[in-house]
Amino acid sequence: MISTVINESLGLAFPLFQGGMAWIADGKLAAAVSEAGGLGIISAMAGGDYLRGQIKIARELTKKPIGVNLMLQSNTADEAAQIIIDEGVEVVTTGAGMPTKYMPAWLDAGIKVIPVIASVAMAVRMEKLGAFAVVAEGQESGGHIGELTTMALVPQVVDAVSIPVIAAGGIADGRGVAASFMLGAKGVQLGTRFLVAKECGVHHNYKQMVLDANDTSTITTGRRFGGNTCRQLKNQFSRNFIKVEYAPESTAETVADLGVGALRRAAVDGDTKTGCFLAGQISGMVKTEQTASEIINEIFAEAEQLLSGTEFVK
Amino acid sequence: MISTVINESLGLAFPLFQGGMAWIADGKLAAAVSEAGGLGIISAMAGGDYLRGQIKIARELTKKPIGVNLMLQSNTADEAAQIIIDEGVEVVTTGAGMPTKYMPAWLDAGIKVIPVIASVAMAVRMEKLGAFAVVAEGQESGGHIGELTTMALVPQVVDAVSIPVIAAGGIADGRGVAASFMLGAKGVQLGTRFLVAKECGVHHNYKQMVLDANDTSTITTGRRFGGNTCRQLKNQFSRNFIKVEYAPESTAETVADLGVGALRRAAVDGDTKTGCFLAGQISGMVKTEQTASEIINEIFAEAEQLLSGTEFVK
Repeated sequence: MISTVINESLGLAFPLFQGGMAWIADGKLAAAVSEAGGLGIISAMAGGDYLRGQIKIARELTKKPIGVNLMLQSNTADEAAQIIIDEGVEVVTTGAGMPTKYMPAWLDAGIKVIPVIASVAMAVRMEKLGAFAVVAEGQESGGHIGELTTMALVPQVVDAVSIPVIAAGGIADGRGVAASFMLGAKGVQLGTRFLVAKECGVHHNYKQMVLDANDTSTITTGRRFGGNTCRQLKNQFSRNFIKVEYAPESTAETVADLGVGALRRAAVDGDTKTGCFLAGQISGMVKTEQTASEIINEIFAEAEQLLSGTEFVK
Repeated sequence: MISTVINESLGLAFPLFQGGMAWIADGKLAAAVSEAGGLGIISAMAGGDYLRGQIKIARELTKKPIGVNLMLQSNTADEAAQIIIDEGVEVVTTGAGMPTKYMPAWLDAGIKVIPVIASVAMAVRMEKLGAFAVVAEGQESGGHIGELTTMALVPQVVDAVSIPVIAAGGIADGRGVAASFMLGAKGVQLGTRFLVAKECGVHHNYKQMVLDANDTSTITTGRRFGGNTCRQLKNQFSRNFIKVEYAPESTAETVADLGVGALRRAAVDGDTKTGCFLAGQISGMVKTEQTASEIINEIFAEAEQLLSGTEFVK
C-alpha cells in the first residue's frame, strides 16, 4: 500500500483528493470519492443553502471524512466558512487568497486547513497561518491557475515548508501519482479525471468534450490583463474570449464581463458553444467514464507497481 | 546504476542530455558534459565557422560522443546540417520545425536524430520520419516553448510513439529525473542547471541572475501574436517587452524587432538590463556553480536513491 501522512492523518485509504471543481463538485461526487478511499471535496461556490444541502447528501452516502473547497473571493465565503464548522466538515481547501480571518475558528473546530497555492511565497505564508498541508497546483490544471508547472512548483514548495505538500495539475494516472511522490509530494489532487466519474453530475456534453480531447485541446484565457488566467477546453467561447481579450480596444472591464454565467452554461446546460469548459492539459489522457472507485483503484494499482520497492510502498 | 536504451545506445554513462542552449552551449561545455558521462550538445546557432570550431574544441577535450542542436529556422541550417555529417557528430537534436529535408543524409551517415517536440502530433511525425527518440520539452523550460507542461506532455507522448522519450523542462535535480522516469521517459535533458556549470562560458552576470532567482523569477513573452512564446528571467528587457507586446497599438512586427541582439547581450555582454536571459522555472532550485561532472553525479546519485528498488536501477 502507498501510505503517507496525508491519508494516515485524515483517515483515508489513499492520499488522494478530488479537486473541488466549482459548479461541479457536489455531495454525490464527493461521497463517491470518499467512500472509495480518497477525500471527496464539495465546492462551496454556489452559496450557503446549496453547500448545506450537498454536505447533507454526502453525509447520507458515506460515513467517511469529506472536504469543502472555499474560494475566498466568493461573496458567500463568510457564510460558507461558518457552515463548514457547523456541519463538522473534516477538511477545508481554500483558493484565491489568504484564509487569515477564518483560520482561528477553523483550527479551534479541529478542521484541517489545506490551502491550494501556486508559489513558494504563498506556501510559506499558509504554513505560518497554521495550515495542515498545502496543495501545490501547477498550471497544467484546469480552471484558475498560476504560472508555475507541477514539475517546477512541487519540489520548490517541498524545500520551503515543513508541512506536507499535495501535488495537483497534470496528474491523470498512476504515472502522475508516482512522479508526484518522486518530486516530494505526500499526496495528489485530481480534478479532470473525476469530471468523467460516473457519479459526477456534470452535463453529458462536458464529459464528452473531455473524453474527445487530445493533448493540445486546452487554452488559457485572462493573461493580458493579469491575475485571472484560466485553463479551459478550446471551443467557440474560449476562442471568442481570446479574440476579444487581445483586441486593441479591449480593457480589463470588457474582458471581465465575458465570463459571466459561462461556467454554469458548461456544467449545467452543457452548451458546447457558449459554455466555459474548465479542464486540465491531461484531458487527452482521460478516455473512459468510470466510477470514482474504479478510477482510484486503477490509478493506485499503477502507482504502486511503479513505486514497488521504494520507500513509498509499505 | 540507472540505465536505459538512451545511454546504452548512445554509449553514455548516464541517460542525460545537456540542452543545446543558443549562444551558450559551446564546445567546452559540451565536452565537459560528455566527458562526465552525459551527452554534451553544441548549439549550431552562431553559424558554420563557429560550429566547426566548437566541434573541434569538443573533440580535443573528449573522445566521447557529442551532439549538435540545430534550430531548423536558422538561416545557416543547411550549412550546419552538412557540417554535422562532415564532422561525424553522433547525435543531432532539432528544434523549430520538421527536419524532413536533412533526414535521409543524416540517417545515411548513421547519425541519431532526436527532435525536440512540444506535442503528441509532432512526436508522431518525427517517429515516422525516422527519429531515434524525441525530447518532449515542457513549457517550464527556458527559451522558446510550447504550451504543454512536462507532467502533461511526457506520458501523452510516451503513449503515442514507440521510440524512446527524453523528458525536458522542470528538471533540476534527482527528484526531477526520478519523476521523469515515472512518467515514462527513458532519459532527461537539462538546460538551466548547466547554465551555471563551471565549464559554461556564459557571462558571469547571467550565472548570477540564475543563482539569485526564485520560483517566480521567470516570465513568458511572445504570447499575444502567437508562435514565439519565450521563457526568460524577469528584468528590464522582459518587462519592457511585455509592456510593448500588450500595448493596444502594437503589431506582430513591432514585437518581432524587440528581441534583436538581446540573447547575445545577455550571454556574451552580461547586460542585465537590455539582455534577454533565457532560463527555466527551476532557476530557483539552482544555487551553486559546480563542474558538469559534479552536477551530473549529484543528480544521478539522488535519482538512484529515489528509484532504488524499482526496475529503473540495474
